Amino acid sequence: MKTAVFPGSFDPITNAHIDIIKRALPLFDKVYLAIGVNSAKEPFISYEIRRQILERIFISEKDKIIIDSYQGLTIDYCKKVNAKFIIRGMRNVSDFEYEQPISQNNQLIDEQVQTIFLISSPGYSHISSTIVREIYRNGGNLSKLVPQEVIDLLPKP
Amino acid sequence: MKTAVFPGSFDPITNAHIDIIKRALPLFDKVYLAIGVNSAKEPFISYEIRRQILERIFISEKDKIIIDSYQGLTIDYCKKVNAKFIIRGMRNVSDFEYEQPISQNNQLIDEQVQTIFLISSPGYSHISSTIVREIYRNGGNLSKLVPQEVIDLLPKP
Amino acid sequence: MKTAVFPGSFDPITNAHIDIIKRALPLFDKVYLAIGVNSAKEPFISYEIRRQILERIFISEKDKIIIDSYQGLTIDYCKKVNAKFIIRGMRNVSDFEYEQPISQNNQLIDEQVQTIFLISSPGYSHISSTIVREIYRNGGNLSKLVPQEVIDLLPKP
Amino acid sequence: MKTAVFPGSFDPITNAHIDIIKRALPLFDKVYLAIGVNSAKEPFISYEIRRQILERIFISEKDKIIIDSYQGLTIDYCKKVNAKFIIRGMRNVSDFEYEQPISQNNQLIDEQVQTIFLISSPGYSHISSTIVREIYRNGGNLSKLVPQEVIDLLPKP
Amino acid sequence: MKTAVFPGSFDPITNAHIDIIKRALPLFDKVYLAIGVNSAKEPFISYEIRRQILERIFISEKDKIIIDSYQGLTIDYCKKVNAKFIIRGMRNVSDFEYEQPISQNNQLIDEQVQTIFLISSPGYSHISSTIVREIYRNGGNLSKLVPQEVIDLLPKP
Amino acid sequence: MKTAVFPGSFDPITNAHIDIIKRALPLFDKVYLAIGVNSAKEPFISYEIRRQILERIFISEKDKIIIDSYQGLTIDYCKKVNAKFIIRGMRNVSDFEYEQPISQNNQLIDEQVQTIFLISSPGYSHISSTIVREIYRNGGNLSKLVPQEVIDLLPKP
Repeated sequence: MKTAVFPGSFDPITNAHIDIIKRALPLFDKVYLAIGVNSAKEPFISYEIRRQILERIFISEKDKIIIDSYQGLTIDYCKKVNAKFIIRGMRNVSDFEYEQPISQNNQLIDEQVQTIFLISSPGYSHISSTIVREIYRNGGNLSKLVPQEVIDLLPKP
Repeated sequence: MKTAVFPGSFDPITNAHIDIIKRALPLFDKVYLAIGVNSAKEPFISYEIRRQILERIFISEKDKIIIDSYQGLTIDYCKKVNAKFIIRGMRNVSDFEYEQPISQNNQLIDEQVQTIFLISSPGYSHISSTIVREIYRNGGNLSKLVPQEVIDLLPKP
Repeated sequence: MKTAVFPGSFDPITNAHIDIIKRALPLFDKVYLAIGVNSAKEPFISYEIRRQILERIFISEKDKIIIDSYQGLTIDYCKKVNAKFIIRGMRNVSDFEYEQPISQNNQLIDEQVQTIFLISSPGYSHISSTIVREIYRNGGNLSKLVPQEVIDLLPKP
Repeated sequence: MKTAVFPGSFDPITNAHIDIIKRALPLFDKVYLAIGVNSAKEPFISYEIRRQILERIFISEKDKIIIDSYQGLTIDYCKKVNAKFIIRGMRNVSDFEYEQPISQNNQLIDEQVQTIFLISSPGYSHISSTIVREIYRNGGNLSKLVPQEVIDLLPKP
Repeated sequence: MKTAVFPGSFDPITNAHIDIIKRALPLFDKVYLAIGVNSAKEPFISYEIRRQILERIFISEKDKIIIDSYQGLTIDYCKKVNAKFIIRGMRNVSDFEYEQPISQNNQLIDEQVQTIFLISSPGYSHISSTIVREIYRNGGNLSKLVPQEVIDLLPKP
Repeated sequence: MKTAVFPGSFDPITNAHIDIIKRALPLFDKVYLAIGVNSAKEPFISYEIRRQILERIFISEKDKIIIDSYQGLTIDYCKKVNAKFIIRGMRNVSDFEYEQPISQNNQLIDEQVQTIFLISSPGYSHISSTIVREIYRNGGNLSKLVPQEVIDLLPKP
C-alpha cells in the first residue's frame, strides 16, 4: 500500500492546493491531508474550521483521503502514519528555493521517505493562502481562488 | 499498475540521474528509461552505447525498469506505453524554470499524465551531463560524477 | 486622460522609487503616489512626515502628481480614483517573484486595470527602504540612497 | 502622441504575446509590432508569412497597430519611428533575467526611451514560441497556444 | 597583513559556516568571526554560549581566528578592526539575492572594503541555522548539520 | 605567495570584468588573466588582439598581473601555474546558477583550490561581452561598457 502525506497549514486551503492533491491522488492508496499545528502562531482560521473545510471538500474521496493534524517535524509524522511519501506543490522559484533544503534535509533524516513535487497547473501559480487572506481582509471576491466550502465557512468580514 | 516514464538524453547518465531513479522507483510498478533520440543533434555517446550503459546499470532491476528510446513528444510516448506519470529531477532554479512550462503544457495536452519531480539529494545538485562531457574532453576524473559502467564504455579520450 | 497609481509605503522613499516615477511620468496625465497605510504595522516614519517628504520632492510636478494615501486593496483604490494603470518598479528576481502573483490576481479581480513595470536604471537595483532604515539606525550616510528631502525630515538618530 | 514599439521575432506569435499586446494597447496611440529580422538565423516561419499572420490578427486594430520589421538595435528602430516606449512581456524569472540588462543598457544608450513590462496573465506564463515550434514539429495540437491565424498559415507538417 | 571579517549571527554555527570559514582561511592572515548582536531580537542561543561554541571549534586556529561580537553596520566594524575584506557564503539563489544589495551598498559606503563570496561545497547547500533550530525544537538529530561542540552546549530540549 | 587565476574569454573584456579584477587585486600577490581558448568556437576578436587589449589595460599593474592563455579545464591550469584561487564575478542570478555547479565540481576535483566571487559594483551588473558584441555589430556606442583600449583595437564595423 502506497501512503503519502500532504502537509500544510491550509489557512485556508486554495484552488492551488486542490489542483495538486487531485493530480497526485492516482499515485497513492491513501493520502493524509495533515494540518500542521504551530501553537506559537495565531492562525487566520481556527484548526477546527480548517478541518471541517477539508472534510467537506474531500467528502467523496473519504476512503482515500484522511484529514488529520500534527505537531513537530513532518518527517516524524510520516513515520507515525507509516507514509513513505510527502506530496508538495511548486508554483514558482520561491517555492523551489523554500522546498529544496527541506527536501534535502528530509533525505538525510530518513532516506526511506521521498518528497514528490508537482508543478501547479496553468492558471494556478498566482494563488496563495497569503493572498487569499489579504483579499478577504479587504472584502474582496475570493471565488476564483478558493472552493465554495472555504467561502461558506469563513466568518463574514 | 502504475507506470512511469523517465525521459532523458542520458548523454551520459550521471549519478544525479541515478539518485532520482532509485528514489522514484518504489512509487511505480514499471519505469521506462526512455532515451530521447533527436536526429538533428549529434550525440556525445552513440545511442547504442547509451542503451548498453543503462542496461548494465539497472540489470538487477530489469523486471521493473525497461530501457527504451523514443522520438517526438514525451507526452505522446507516454500514451504509447500507457504511462500516466513522467519522472523528472530538479537540481536548481534553472531546472525549475526549464521544467515549469513543459509540465504545464503537458497538463494542457493530456491532463491524465502527471509529471512528478524529485529534488536531487544533498551532494548531487552540481552534477550534469554537460559538466561530465566537459571534464571528459579534458581528460579529468569522472569517478565522483558517473557510475563505473559509464567509465567502462566511454572511449578512452 | 490616462491615470496611474504608484502605490508604496515610501518608508522612506528612495532614489530607486524616484528613478521609476520620473521615467513612468511621460506615459500618464496624472499619477497618484499613494501611501499604503497599514494600521497593524508601526511605520518607521509617520504617515504625516512621509506625505510632507513626497510633497516637497514632487513640488514642481504638482499638476501631474497627486500625493495621497489609502487603506485596503490597491485595486480598489484604483477604482476610487478612476485609474486604469498601476506603476511598479522591479530591481531583482525577488521583486519579480513578489510582483507576479499580485499582478496576476489583479488581472482576475479587474481586467481593466493593468500593472506596468519598469526595471530600475543601472546603479539603482541595490537601493531599498529596508537598507535605508538599517543604515539610518546605525548612523550611516544616506546621501547616495535617498533625496535630500528625506534626510532633512528624518529625526536625527 | 504616445508611440510604442513591441519588438519580437514572432516566430510564431503566441497567445502570450497577444495577451501583452491587448493589455498594453490602451496606454498608447500607436504601437509598432516590429518583427526583428536577423539575417544570420534561419527562421521557423518566413518573414513574409509572419507579417501576414500579424496583419490578420490585428486587422480590427489597424488604425493603431502597425506591422513592421527592422534590423539592428531595437533602440535605433525606436528613434526611427519616433517611439519613446518599448513594450515587453515577462512570464517568469528567466524572462526577467534576460530583460534586465537589455532594459538597463537601453537606459544608457537613450534615456528618453523607456521599456515598459507587463507580466503575463494567469494561464499564459507557460507559452513560448519555442514550445510551439517543438509541438508543431511533432504534430501536436496548437489550439491552446496560438491564435487560429497561425494555424491557418503554417504549412501542414 | 590581510584581515577579514566573517559576520554572522551563528545562532547556531552550522557545518555550512565551517565549510566556508575553513576554505577562506588560507587567503587571510587574520579572520574575525564577528557575532552580530541585535538587541531587538531574542536569540535562540545566548551570545555567551555562541561565543563559547566558536572558541571551542576554532581552538586550534586561535592564532588566526578571533572570536568577537559587534553591533551596528558590518562595514563600520570592519573599519574598527582594520579589515579590508568581508567573507560570506552562498548556498542558493536566495542567498545571492540577499547578499547582492548589501555588497553593493557596502561598495558605496566604503570602496576600500571588498566582500568575498564562496559557494558552499557539494552537500552543504541545504544547511541553515533556521533548519537546525526547527529540527532541534522537535527533538530531531543534528549530527549531520552542526559540529559536536554545538550539540554539547545546547540545552537538552 | 598568494596566486589567483581570473579565467575568461574576454571577448571583449568589459568594464564589469575590470571592476572585479581591480577589487580582487589587493587580495593577491599575482593574478593570471587567463584567456580560455576554445578551438571549436570562432571568437569575436582574435586571441592575439584580446591579449594586446589586456596588456594595454593592465600595463601599470604588470608586476602583479600576468596575461596568459590556456586550453582545457581551468582547474588544471591552476595547478600548472600553482594558483590556489580562482576569481570570478557575479552580476545576477543567472551568473550564480552558472557558477554554482562549476565551483562545486572544482571542489571535488581539487579541494585545495578555492573559487572566490565578487558581486559587481552598483551600475555594472548589466554589462556583458554578449551585449557589447551585439551593440558593436549594430554600430552602437560602446564607451560606457568597455575601456578605451577595446574601442581602439576593435576593427571599425
